[in-house]
Amino acid sequence: MEKTEGWVTAPRSFVAAGVKAGLKSSGNHDLAVIFSQRLASCGAVFTQNKMCAAPVLVSREVAKGGRARAILVNSGCANACTGVRGLEDAKAMQAEGAKLLGIEPTEAFVCSTGVIGQFMPMEKLKEGLAAAVAALSKEGGEDCAKAIQTTDTFIKRSAYKTVIGGKEIICAGIAKGAGMIHPNMATMLTFFTTDAAVAPAVLQKAVKEAADSSFNMVVVDGDTSTNDTMIVLANGAAGNPSIDSTEHPDYAAFLRLLTACAQDLAKMIAKDGEGATKFLEVHVVGAATKADAKLAAMAIAKSPLVKTAFFGQDPNWGRIVCAAGYSGAEMAADKVNLEIGGIRLVEAGLNCNVPLEKLAPTMSRREIAMTVDLAVGHEAATVWTCDLSYEYVKINGEYHT
Amino acid sequence: MEKTEGWVTAPRSFVAAGVKAGLKSSGNHDLAVIFSQRLASCGAVFTQNKMCAAPVLVSREVAKGGRARAILVNSGCANACTGVRGLEDAKAMQAEGAKLLGIEPTEAFVCSTGVIGQFMPMEKLKEGLAAAVAALSKEGGEDCAKAIQTTDTFIKRSAYKTVIGGKEIICAGIAKGAGMIHPNMATMLTFFTTDAAVAPAVLQKAVKEAADSSFNMVVVDGDTSTNDTMIVLANGAAGNPSIDSTEHPDYAAFLRLLTACAQDLAKMIAKDGEGATKFLEVHVVGAATKADAKLAAMAIAKSPLVKTAFFGQDPNWGRIVCAAGYSGAEMAADKVNLEIGGIRLVEAGLNCNVPLEKLAPTMSRREIAMTVDLAVGHEAATVWTCDLSYEYVKINGEYHT
Repeated sequence: MEKTEGWVTAPRSFVAAGVKAGLKSSGNHDLAVIFSQRLASCGAVFTQNKMCAAPVLVSREVAKGGRARAILVNSGCANACTGVRGLEDAKAMQAEGAKLLGIEPTEAFVCSTGVIGQFMPMEKLKEGLAAAVAALSKEGGEDCAKAIQTTDTFIKRSAYKTVIGGKEIICAGIAKGAGMIHPNMATMLTFFTTDAAVAPAVLQKAVKEAADSSFNMVVVDGDTSTNDTMIVLANGAAGNPSIDSTEHPDYAAFLRLLTACAQDLAKMIAKDGEGATKFLEVHVVGAATKADAKLAAMAIAKSPLVKTAFFGQDPNWGRIVCAAGYSGAEMAADKVNLEIGGIRLVEAGLNCNVPLEKLAPTMSRREIAMTVDLAVGHEAATVWTCDLSYEYVKINGEYHT
Repeated sequence: MEKTEGWVTAPRSFVAAGVKAGLKSSGNHDLAVIFSQRLASCGAVFTQNKMCAAPVLVSREVAKGGRARAILVNSGCANACTGVRGLEDAKAMQAEGAKLLGIEPTEAFVCSTGVIGQFMPMEKLKEGLAAAVAALSKEGGEDCAKAIQTTDTFIKRSAYKTVIGGKEIICAGIAKGAGMIHPNMATMLTFFTTDAAVAPAVLQKAVKEAADSSFNMVVVDGDTSTNDTMIVLANGAAGNPSIDSTEHPDYAAFLRLLTACAQDLAKMIAKDGEGATKFLEVHVVGAATKADAKLAAMAIAKSPLVKTAFFGQDPNWGRIVCAAGYSGAEMAADKVNLEIGGIRLVEAGLNCNVPLEKLAPTMSRREIAMTVDLAVGHEAATVWTCDLSYEYVKINGEYHT
């Protein structure tokens, strides 16, 4: 498997476009279409938020069908908390896109991100869809990536290629998200294209598994949006023997490919966390169960005390072991070990009294890894997060609805 | 039941003291003793943190005995993450205090708050204990309250009196805590004295019940310390017929008394949250279960997005309903209602488009209440919290270990 250049149009038989439909007050790109020239298998995971947005309801139905050809995305308006009219608008967005593309509505995912509680400006949206469909091309990947962004400070994309079943397979992904953001909240949206041949049910399992070791291991502020969506289209244009079961010899290689892309994007989201000055990697090892490892790593990554300490470049190990302690994970208080940047700070539950001077170079880095050993088993988990800065409070506190 | 003046020495047959033992680098009061001149029933609840401090381990054993006469408390050193030596020090603190007071070690609670990962300066502690025991008096309540504080910006105390079983009963409490704080972390400690006669097992139930509707409903940053402790001593000096069962006709009145004190103190802790500019009361109503109501209220109160929005005086209803949505509580997305300061912002899941000018006076207040109706049942819960300000990041990020 090797990293490659290219956008979601890098895999065979995919085209894309991004246009300015006037949905964002900034006037930037705000409407994207990703299109597979062949019917593709699809897999998707969605927000678990009970206040989920209208497009999530519509896209869940598409995912159930297992086959799709298009992803229609707008930024600027989340179409969330919009009730019956919002649902009608999402369906109309789907129908309009499908008509323009000459496909069935059930083959078109719809996703929205932006302001919540406002109705979709349908005229602008429809004009934008027509412009985007007309603009679909192999070169449209970058504009497409631009059009899904809100407050992101950089574009997030990743692509890998490998040989599966004797064929070169490409998987490419884009993402947007930087914490839940102004205005009101934002969302994590991420879309993947691949020319691998994968059966729908198998793809769905791969998507779930890849999400669990990537996007589900990222914390910015712990708030789950109403619109979070991950979609993968696999169109089989590479001509590999279809991966039709998780027991298929090529399944593991495909999962690795998709996971590599997903983890790249997940880490970029943590790095782009609102106001972040540091990217933090929280490893928990020695846990009794995988679930415990994640519980402890998540508690550490979510702790405002831990996050502000890293912002202040303070190696405050007490807050880290304390967060593990209240996470609910089993741990041996008198055996716990903690390292930051490879330097042991706590050994068998006791302060190693490392001089601050020795830690200063580590704490001043832009990317810092820590490892907490719960000392009760052999399971591990890694969560990515960022620090909590003045800028986070500014971004999220100074905006007025 | 009426509010009254006085410290933990207000109930009959209690004395207290607070002295400067040199444990705090500031030189302020740092060692407190609360003493009942008669053997008292005791009830207590402790942190659930698996990294709990040595004094918590020792005090848990005292609580099991059901009877106690003293609470020995120091600030400046938490005696947490101190291993075997820390446990020996906590036991030595208990033994020394008991010897000075002429009671059994098993009748003396020990509590510590302050820096973690450092050993207790035992010589200073022992000298302080001797000075405090010598200073015990009815007038010692205020110094006692001072000595348990760390970064609190004001002293937290509450007292109520009522007639139970034909006798005037007083219940008084003090607390310290303002989020988990510099240095490393702090703790919530709270101590109550009452001259009611209550059987130990009944008192333990009352303490648990009072904690669940007060301290367990407060969020500052969601971090649970290694040392959190609530202790109640009930010495029976008022001469009321002993409340020997939760079915006893006086149990409800006693629980109300204790809960009133505890809720006062819990709200004061939220008001004193690190860097707080606003006190927030989150009511959740219309929940399917009591647990769901608490789950939703806690998710809202913990959300950094909600907390920063209030700091910014932004009536960001989207973040509030979104937090309820991901809390795990059952809710009807298309029936949810939300009010802030009595003004309806969301009705049946839809934005009421209230003009910002109309909300500005509410949002600028120092204390703001909000009510979220999940619209699926009849259960309710209230959680108290504060906003998230630049000052929180400063307090917790600028300190260097």
